[in-house]
Amino acid sequence: MARLHFIILIFSSIFAISSSSIRPPHPFDALTRTELKLVRNVIKKTYPVGPKYNFTFQYVGLNEPDKSLVLSWHSSPDLNVKPPPRQAFVIVRDNGKTREIVVDFSSRVIISDKIHVGKGNPTLTIDEQEAATALVHKFKPFRDSIRRRGLKLSEVVVTSSTMGWFGETKTKRLIKTIPFYLNGSVNTYLRPIEGMTIIVNLDKMMVTKFKDRFTSPLPKANGTEFRFSKLKPPFGPALQNAVLFQPSGPGFKIEGHIVRWANWEFHLSFDVRAGIVISLASIFDMDVNKYRQVLYKGHLSEMFIPYMDPTDDWYFITYLDCGDFGCGQCAVSLEPYTDCPAGAVFMDGIFAGQDGTPAKIPNAICIFEKYAGDIMWRHTEAEIPNLEITEVRPDVSLVARIVTTVGNYDYIVDYEFKPSGSIKMGVGLTGVLEIKPVEYIHTSEIKKGEDIHGTIVADNTVGVNHDHFVIFRLDLDIDGSDNSFVRNELVTKRAPESVNTPRRSYWTSRPKTAKTEAEARVKLGLKAEELVVVNPNRKTKHGNEVGYRLLHGSAAGPLLAQDDYPQIRAAFTNYNVWITPYNRSEVWAGGLYADRSQGDDTLAVWSERNRKIENKDLVMWYTIGFHHVPSQEDYPTMPTLSGGFELRPTNFFERNPVLKTKPVKLTTARKCIPKDD
Amino acid sequence: MARLHFIILIFSSIFAISSSSIRPPHPFDALTRTELKLVRNVIKKTYPVGPKYNFTFQYVGLNEPDKSLVLSWHSSPDLNVKPPPRQAFVIVRDNGKTREIVVDFSSRVIISDKIHVGKGNPTLTIDEQEAATALVHKFKPFRDSIRRRGLKLSEVVVTSSTMGWFGETKTKRLIKTIPFYLNGSVNTYLRPIEGMTIIVNLDKMMVTKFKDRFTSPLPKANGTEFRFSKLKPPFGPALQNAVLFQPSGPGFKIEGHIVRWANWEFHLSFDVRAGIVISLASIFDMDVNKYRQVLYKGHLSEMFIPYMDPTDDWYFITYLDCGDFGCGQCAVSLEPYTDCPAGAVFMDGIFAGQDGTPAKIPNAICIFEKYAGDIMWRHTEAEIPNLEITEVRPDVSLVARIVTTVGNYDYIVDYEFKPSGSIKMGVGLTGVLEIKPVEYIHTSEIKKGEDIHGTIVADNTVGVNHDHFVIFRLDLDIDGSDNSFVRNELVTKRAPESVNTPRRSYWTSRPKTAKTEAEARVKLGLKAEELVVVNPNRKTKHGNEVGYRLLHGSAAGPLLAQDDYPQIRAAFTNYNVWITPYNRSEVWAGGLYADRSQGDDTLAVWSERNRKIENKDLVMWYTIGFHHVPSQEDYPTMPTLSGGFELRPTNFFERNPVLKTKPVKLTTARKCIPKDD
Repeated sequence: MARLHFIILIFSSIFAISSSSIRPPHPFDALTRTELKLVRNVIKKTYPVGPKYNFTFQYVGLNEPDKSLVLSWHSSPDLNVKPPPRQAFVIVRDNGKTREIVVDFSSRVIISDKIHVGKGNPTLTIDEQEAATALVHKFKPFRDSIRRRGLKLSEVVVTSSTMGWFGETKTKRLIKTIPFYLNGSVNTYLRPIEGMTIIVNLDKMMVTKFKDRFTSPLPKANGTEFRFSKLKPPFGPALQNAVLFQPSGPGFKIEGHIVRWANWEFHLSFDVRAGIVISLASIFDMDVNKYRQVLYKGHLSEMFIPYMDPTDDWYFITYLDCGDFGCGQCAVSLEPYTDCPAGAVFMDGIFAGQDGTPAKIPNAICIFEKYAGDIMWRHTEAEIPNLEITEVRPDVSLVARIVTTVGNYDYIVDYEFKPSGSIKMGVGLTGVLEIKPVEYIHTSEIKKGEDIHGTIVADNTVGVNHDHFVIFRLDLDIDGSDNSFVRNELVTKRAPESVNTPRRSYWTSRPKTAKTEAEARVKLGLKAEELVVVNPNRKTKHGNEVGYRLLHGSAAGPLLAQDDYPQIRAAFTNYNVWITPYNRSEVWAGGLYADRSQGDDTLAVWSERNRKIENKDLVMWYTIGFHHVPSQEDYPTMPTLSGGFELRPTNFFERNPVLKTKPVKLTTARKCIPKDD
Repeated sequence: MARLHFIILIFSSIFAISSSSIRPPHPFDALTRTELKLVRNVIKKTYPVGPKYNFTFQYVGLNEPDKSLVLSWHSSPDLNVKPPPRQAFVIVRDNGKTREIVVDFSSRVIISDKIHVGKGNPTLTIDEQEAATALVHKFKPFRDSIRRRGLKLSEVVVTSSTMGWFGETKTKRLIKTIPFYLNGSVNTYLRPIEGMTIIVNLDKMMVTKFKDRFTSPLPKANGTEFRFSKLKPPFGPALQNAVLFQPSGPGFKIEGHIVRWANWEFHLSFDVRAGIVISLASIFDMDVNKYRQVLYKGHLSEMFIPYMDPTDDWYFITYLDCGDFGCGQCAVSLEPYTDCPAGAVFMDGIFAGQDGTPAKIPNAICIFEKYAGDIMWRHTEAEIPNLEITEVRPDVSLVARIVTTVGNYDYIVDYEFKPSGSIKMGVGLTGVLEIKPVEYIHTSEIKKGEDIHGTIVADNTVGVNHDHFVIFRLDLDIDGSDNSFVRNELVTKRAPESVNTPRRSYWTSRPKTAKTEAEARVKLGLKAEELVVVNPNRKTKHGNEVGYRLLHGSAAGPLLAQDDYPQIRAAFTNYNVWITPYNRSEVWAGGLYADRSQGDDTLAVWSERNRKIENKDLVMWYTIGFHHVPSQEDYPTMPTLSGGFELRPTNFFERNPVLKTKPVKLTTARKCIPKDD
């Protein structure tokens, strides 16, 4: 029975981390409010800024610092080497053109300014989407169509949707807008008003096409409620509240945006496009008494969510969420104790609004220790006469979480660090389905041979079939920057004649280092192979190459035809795993300009160069995929569906790195006094 | 900020559940001590029992009650139908023969008694393994060999290993014994003394073969220590203790062996071969105000762990752990707060020893609520002007856990129930590697072209390549016993000419009901398909067949040749998923008699009959597989490597079954008073 002596420490675990500080910024710190204002002021010296001058800020973020400079700064004693120049990378829309501007903070000048001449458009701002939908709401033909349907305009919500690309030669900044009907529901997406094609030109901010094609049944409001405060009894299933108390306080420390916990140290930042950015993640190795590099930079690179209804109201719904809408921009404020458990610490997301002034998502990121009841390692040794030994180390991990709600779907993105050296990336899908109104309330009404492209999940309501592909960019630096990718195939061998054995077979590993990008493209599930990123320049004392192994989850690949436009744009889904040589400009797997992109700037295109990747600075790309046939359980909100993968040290350490972890105890209390008593 | 008012309840969450009770036993209750004694007494009337009469109890467990009788009892109001007759199924070894005996408890007589004439032998008892290894320890030629190696006999531990089967026509109950050397280490398995072939006949309890073939280097004791109390500083990484407090007590209630929690009810039992047995799991559906069946019975059926070194000391290491050694018999006593977190309740494992008298594994099973910080569902609705709604339901689940330590490996087996209706089966591998002594301490010493069949993980120590296959038998009864297995393939379609669309493709689902066993054999990862067990006789109000879908993890298949003996014996690994019609006698996927089995009684053989499986009582078999190339991190104990799968309701409910769950709060406290203060 545990003997604990605490009843003591008060730790205010819910506080926002100050984004300003006296110390010089870390090279990976997100731009501060002050810096965002400075960017605007510097640019304002050259350009009239703001929507009324048709000059809008579509992306403002940290200009990726030179990697070699970051590494020499980071590896210098007491960080006494000068950090790399701090700069902002800005994408603006300037009178119908896309302009890329780099602003230097120390000199406070624009150091680079060029017009983007390629395909695709920048990420949509929230402001312009709101302006566009407000415009439609006031657009007379639209109002007439709503009235003609017998609906109340005051109950109509108009939402914006990117259009995709389907072979058009010009890709103006057009969006489609889709109306929904509230009138007794707050679950917007479950009551679409179908049949209208409404296109808005964002640069001109005008409706350029309106067509009322047909009317559909309107799904009922009844059954769409999801607010606890409005639902009627009976409630259930009943779960119990719980209190977590850490007698010695939390195990992590945050200094600026550097997180230190157990044997891990990493920088945690927010980007308006990627959401969470982890950088300079390294792990303390007790054997050599120093931190060793693992992940130079890791983040969400893109999502692809194609829907599987080819008809007019649906064919274009093929979102590249991070590029189209900004996976950071769509981050929501996390709720203490429900979105993130007890002990969580929160961090705001600061970004630039359309006019360049700072905006804030309070509590956009949380960091917490996860006590899931798992076992880190254990062993009961029962073979020794008169001695039974049981040693158990319960597992605790550290999670950095963001939730991105892109309209209907809520994506829970977790980066989990384990003391054993593993990093797990997880995605949870929840929120609300995109649904299509139909006449039907029962499958028996479906016409023979008709494909409804989904499942009847409620009266007049089809949850439409779709995919979710979520790709992570992982700039791994396994114990240094120069790494190789080893495909260690496990192959069946016949037992050799030379060995006197009744066994007829066994498997052996046949490691093969991928020399070029083509050799490193992996469709998972086809063969038994270990995928390992090694540092061929570092070996353990037993001569094994130090490495990290990919433990993948259940894999999904694309089902769209290779010649279909959405698939060309999201060709990064063609393989589950890709390796590229580090290239500062290859960050967004669907292209820097994803909205209406044409697939000429994707990971698949970069990889076609088939560059050498042996003993180089490598980037791993991994796609978590889901094919989603909706079920009635997904209505009116969807229980979380999870996927993920793990990077696990393999011969990175000389021995079990958590062998000498002191066993923690996860105990119960007799009573607790709540925080605010 | 949370306002909590509790500081109150005392709940003694650590107690063993009494296995005796006044109420009549539940049909799935494990045999009690009293019943085990009765079995022995009944059999003793006919046979002289005990090792000295060469009459040993190899398995004593519940004789599977007639399913139709259980179901009619279970579905009767107030359980007022007579439960099925309670009986014990006993396997004894009687003077060199295997005998199967059924004892009826009400009449207290043997109602069936027959000699097993087929292949294979029953599970080994702990007692006979201890007798055999003690015998070897005293065996003069063995002692001479140990002395000749310059080793101290007092430091030698002899362990037992099943022999497998390699084409022999007679499969006597022989085991091989393997000596290890302590002398400064308590990590037995890391110091094998190789080179001797030592075979013991268990029925005759004599050494029948002894051959000292060669000597190997002995790996050092240094570095094998894993007891915290004996390790030397520095310690780390440092993790924080935590206290869990449930102000309203735990959410589950246990009555006898029935567990009720949230919307779940199931029976939890212990079997000396399977470990945990879950039965009659049903979920409360608020819409119809009743419990609905999901899982009639689910448990571990077998494990297969073949090692990949074909040489003399290793070729036979191809364990069928549950059949060879008993996955319940090898269960260890779980430690409160480390093996199972705060709030866990423990249950003993009662079984019959070799002489038929009851033995006990205290705290063999634990049940706990898992607060992992996950989100059950959430949605932020941000589209409605001037209204932002965030609703979040944190996830809590219930876990039943057992840890089976079969010699070196510790298997953590979790059955997790979610309020959303999912059941997750998880296996964690930890413990100690099986290692092979070698001359080498560095990879550069390996001779060109030599296969060391593993990884050098320490000086003179190779962690040998191997697989773990863990198969679960899941007798699903989805809302009733008659079910079908639907393979819902997702197929790419070209966009039809009839639809005016610029899309060129989409996917659609092509559900196909498997008519026979052959149509239901699945190798995962080859194509995009949903695997659903449906009840074709029950439809939702929208006409969808009620079902449960399999969400598989990363899949592994066999790499041994199909004609290799171990693969023939473990042919259940040939597919990841199998469906069989319910058959009371098909329980153990590697055969009822696994030790030295010849593959004539495996799931693969049963399935060859290719029985009809449409709208029948079905059993699903799922194998979690791992190919394990050891790494240095796995030495001297191995951080847990996890795998699993999920059964998730799909159109089982009319809507999200946790929509109306009251949001729990997982908060922090200012201070807590520990339990034993």
